[in-house]
Formats: sequence, structure tokens, C-alpha cells
Amino acid sequence: MSTGVPTLPPGLTFAKGQATGNDFVIYADPLSEIPLTADLAAALADRRYGVGGDGVIRAVRASALPDGAAGAAAGAQWFMDYRNADGSIAEMCGNGVRVLAEFLQAEGLIDSAETDLVLIATRAGNVLVRREDDIYAVDLGAWKFCGGQGAVRRGCDCQVFVRGIDRPLGGLSVNVGNPHVVVKVSRQELADLDLTQAPVVEPAPVDGANIEFVQVDEGEATIRMRVHERGVGETPSCGTGAAAAALAAWAWAGAAGPTSWVVRVPGGTLRVRMQDDLVELAGPAVLVAKGVILPA
Amino acid sequence: MSTGVPTLPPGLTFAKGQATGNDFVIYADPLSEIPLTADLAAALADRRYGVGGDGVIRAVRASALPDGAAGAAAGAQWFMDYRNADGSIAEMCGNGVRVLAEFLQAEGLIDSAETDLVLIATRAGNVLVRREDDIYAVDLGAWKFCGGQGAVRRGCDCQVFVRGIDRPLGGLSVNVGNPHVVVKVSRQELADLDLTQAPVVEPAPVDGANIEFVQVDEGEATIRMRVHERGVGETPSCGTGAAAAALAAWAWAGAAGPTSWVVRVPGGTLRVRMQDDLVELAGPAVLVAKGVILPA
Repeated sequence: MSTGVPTLPPGLTFAKGQATGNDFVIYADPLSEIPLTADLAAALADRRYGVGGDGVIRAVRASALPDGAAGAAAGAQWFMDYRNADGSIAEMCGNGVRVLAEFLQAEGLIDSAETDLVLIATRAGNVLVRREDDIYAVDLGAWKFCGGQGAVRRGCDCQVFVRGIDRPLGGLSVNVGNPHVVVKVSRQELADLDLTQAPVVEPAPVDGANIEFVQVDEGEATIRMRVHERGVGETPSCGTGAAAAALAAWAWAGAAGPTSWVVRVPGGTLRVRMQDDLVELAGPAVLVAKGVILPA
Repeated sequence: MSTGVPTLPPGLTFAKGQATGNDFVIYADPLSEIPLTADLAAALADRRYGVGGDGVIRAVRASALPDGAAGAAAGAQWFMDYRNADGSIAEMCGNGVRVLAEFLQAEGLIDSAETDLVLIATRAGNVLVRREDDIYAVDLGAWKFCGGQGAVRRGCDCQVFVRGIDRPLGGLSVNVGNPHVVVKVSRQELADLDLTQAPVVEPAPVDGANIEFVQVDEGEATIRMRVHERGVGETPSCGTGAAAAALAAWAWAGAAGPTSWVVRVPGGTLRVRMQDDLVELAGPAVLVAKGVILPA
């Protein structure tokens, strides 16, 4: 009798953690001996036949990376190898990187001198993670409005179609290490929209994009957001998506607008700050359990 | 910043297992010291903030039960305390009891002399579990057609309304320790029906019911089935549901019908056999991982 169980590697130790409801399976592979293939990611992330998560994080010592990658990660202690639940590669994950920092700290994998300041290499470049009371603040590095200043002035550079709202919506493309499209909606529309199917973006982003629907309260510097993630579906939170949303709200607000935003997602609350060319994401990260894969 | 995390007990060791895609968090509590409350079940079963599963099983030594319950469980080695993911109590779970047997065996919690024959107490009475090559066969004990022989002759004793099929369907109520309603549909209807909302049964079962939609191939003694479970939603499998489905198919087939059925569910394949007044369910059970809850 076939059980349809994907192959899981017996003996693999892992942790499960979440950040504002975005959850991850995470394993330490300091010497880069257990590649995170698409199949392994999908098997571990499977919620019924595996451990279950929105994505899988592999923690590799930067010194164990191949020469070229190690060069790119210069100065970083760890590399965050990350895949979505469907096995696809994601450049970066703003919630996942906080869970990774919590994991490295809990497992004693960063020197105590480094615990409040760790440089983590990702496919979107190095990100600095800082401990701040009981939350982590992550400097997300380079970002850009993909459509340029013209798009920012117009407020959009693409059209988004989503179930539950019977009109095309203007979207602003923002790259925060990974591609996002931010769409301003009313509070009622935010409640009404249906993300059980992927929204359609025209023109279609080359590598796809996460789509953030936001209701902006400029006076309170607060954003309410729902997000559809590439390769996952609607999730309770997306860290880089919150940063993209705050960057869009900041651009829409003009020069006098707030540079620090509270972003409320279904899974909790994040804080986004901009300073000069930097954008920083802060929020909680929790390890739920640790475990080991059993022989099939 | 609130993370919305439910309370999980730090230090609790658990396993995660699945049987035909029905997955469970399971923990050993031999002396009955860690009650499986509705809150604990919901927190452990939460797929993002907890470990994740369709339900939670607590394994208690029958000798540790209060006097009255121990009397009811006479002869049993272990008691299966079981709750659905929403915290509600379920009398019995045909897939869960196999995962429990696999867990007790893997953890060395049953004597080697008992490994191929264990008596487990449940809220629906004692069930005998037998190891048969790489599957477990479970004697589900007493069962009944709730509507009596009249209902069996008519083929139904209630009406079921489900999205995706625009007519009332006849349902046959079967109790296999827990309440089920079995509904015969065509192969096309089985593919079309939409279980994202709970089907409606009239008259409504007092304690609710799991609803099984079945396409019966009497000649091949094979059933294809989809199921909506009380307090859970559509799941890839339901063990007692497969037994209820086979009992209904057997009744519909009349005296010369098959007494051994293969039941194909989205998560895999189960076998149901009837002999005299007994019904036996057989199928695989897999432990995926074991772990421990970390301090919040």
C-alpha cells in the first residue's frame, strides 16, 4: 500500500520556528554537507507528510561556501540557504532571517560577542541582524522602486487583478532583495479580497513577485497588509513584503511622510524604518520545537 | 509586539506521525500527568504556531486511569486520549490508533510479546490492534446502522447538501465508535464536490458527523472516497470513515456482496474487512519525526 510519503532524510535534526506566523523548518549544515534540494525542501515543508512550514532554511557557515559564493558573502558568518514550500528558491525572507538568527543564538552557533550583531549572507546579499530587547532588527540592504521616479510619482507601474475586487488596481513594484508589487486598497477592500487564487499582474514580473495589499493610515504611520507569496499562497506575514509596503507608503506620502511605520499583518506586527538608503525590518522570532527525522 | 502564539508546554516531548495522510501530534503520558485539554490540543495541532496536525493523541497507561475509566478499559494496556485540531473530543480515530500503535512500538512502550497484538482503550471502547507485515489491522469493535434495517433497505436515512452538487443526496448513518454519514455519488460528482465548506445533513446528527462521499465499484470491491471531518474540514483520509463507507457499500450490495473492500482515499489506500459482527480496518502508519517543545 503506497503511502505517498516523500523521502525525508532519517537522522536530520531540525527546528521549527515562526515569525509573525510565517513558519519555517530550519537545519544547521555548518560544513555544507546536506544540500537543500527542491525535493528535500518540499518534503520537509509538507504539512502532512513532513514537518511542515512555509519554507525551509539551511544554515551554512560562510567559510564552507564555494570560493565564488564565499567572496560574495565576505564578512558574513553564516549563509541562509532558503527555499519556499514548493521547492522554489527565494532570494531572501525577512521573517525567516530573524528565525535563523534566533536559531543560531539558541544553538550556540554564534559567538557570544556576536549575539547582538550578526552578518548573514543571503542570495540577495549580506544582511545585518541586530538583537533589540526581545525582537530582531534586520538591515535589508539595497532596495529600489523598479519603475523609477516616474512610477513613484504616478503611484504605480503595473496593474493588478484580484478576486473580490472588480476593478484593476495600480501596483508599485519594489525590489527589497526579492520582487514585490504593493497595491493600495481601502479597508473594506482589504477585508473583501480573495487570495485563494494568485492575483494577476500586468505586465507580469519576470521572476514573479509577492503581492502586498495595503491600507495605509499616513497620520498614524500604520499599514494594514495582506500578502500573496510566490509559490506559497496567502500567508499570515511576509517580512520583506512589509518593508516593500512601508517603502511604497513612504513614497506615496511624499517628502514629509513618516520614515518609521508599523505594519500590521494577520500574524502579528512588524516595524519598518528607513534611513538614507537603508531599510530596516524589526519583529519577533520564536522557536517552537526541535526534533529529528525518524527512519521511514 | 504580540505574536499571537498559543501556549505550548516547554519540555514536552512528542512525535509527529501520519497514516494515509491523516497526521497527528502524539505524546506519551504514561502516568496521566499532562492532561490533553482543548487548549493544549489546539496549540499543538496549530500548523503555524505549533507542531501541526489533524489531531493530537495522548498515550496514557490504562492502569493510570481513574477507577471508573479503568474499569471500562479492562484488559487494555494503553488509553488513547484524542482531540481534533480544533480542541474538540473525538471518540475514536481509525488512522490515529495505528499511528499510536507504531509510536508505542517504536518507543518500546509495549512488551515485545505484545507487539503484534495490543489492546488500546478509546472513548468508543477497546480496540485490538494487530501488526500484519508493514501495516496495522485494527478491530474497530461494535458498529451500527443508526437508521436501522429500514434505512439500509432504502439506502439512506438522511439528506446531505454539499457545494458542487445541485441536488440533495441520500445519506446512510453509520456509527463505528464515532458518527458517520455515507453518501453515494458518481465518479464525476466525487471530483466535482467542494468540501471547503461543511456539508449540511438533515436531520442534523446530534453530535455532528464525519461525511464520506463514496463512489462504489462493487465488482472490484473498491471504493473511492473523500471525507469531511467534524472540526477539521476535508482531510486526505479518515480511518473510521473508510470502515463506515465499506459497511454502507456492503449493505447496499446485499447479502452476496463482498466482505473485504479496498478503500482509496486521497492520502493512500486502506483495507476494510467484515466478519460476523466485527469490522476491521488495515493500513500503514508512519512516524515522521520526534521532538521537544522549546521554551517560548
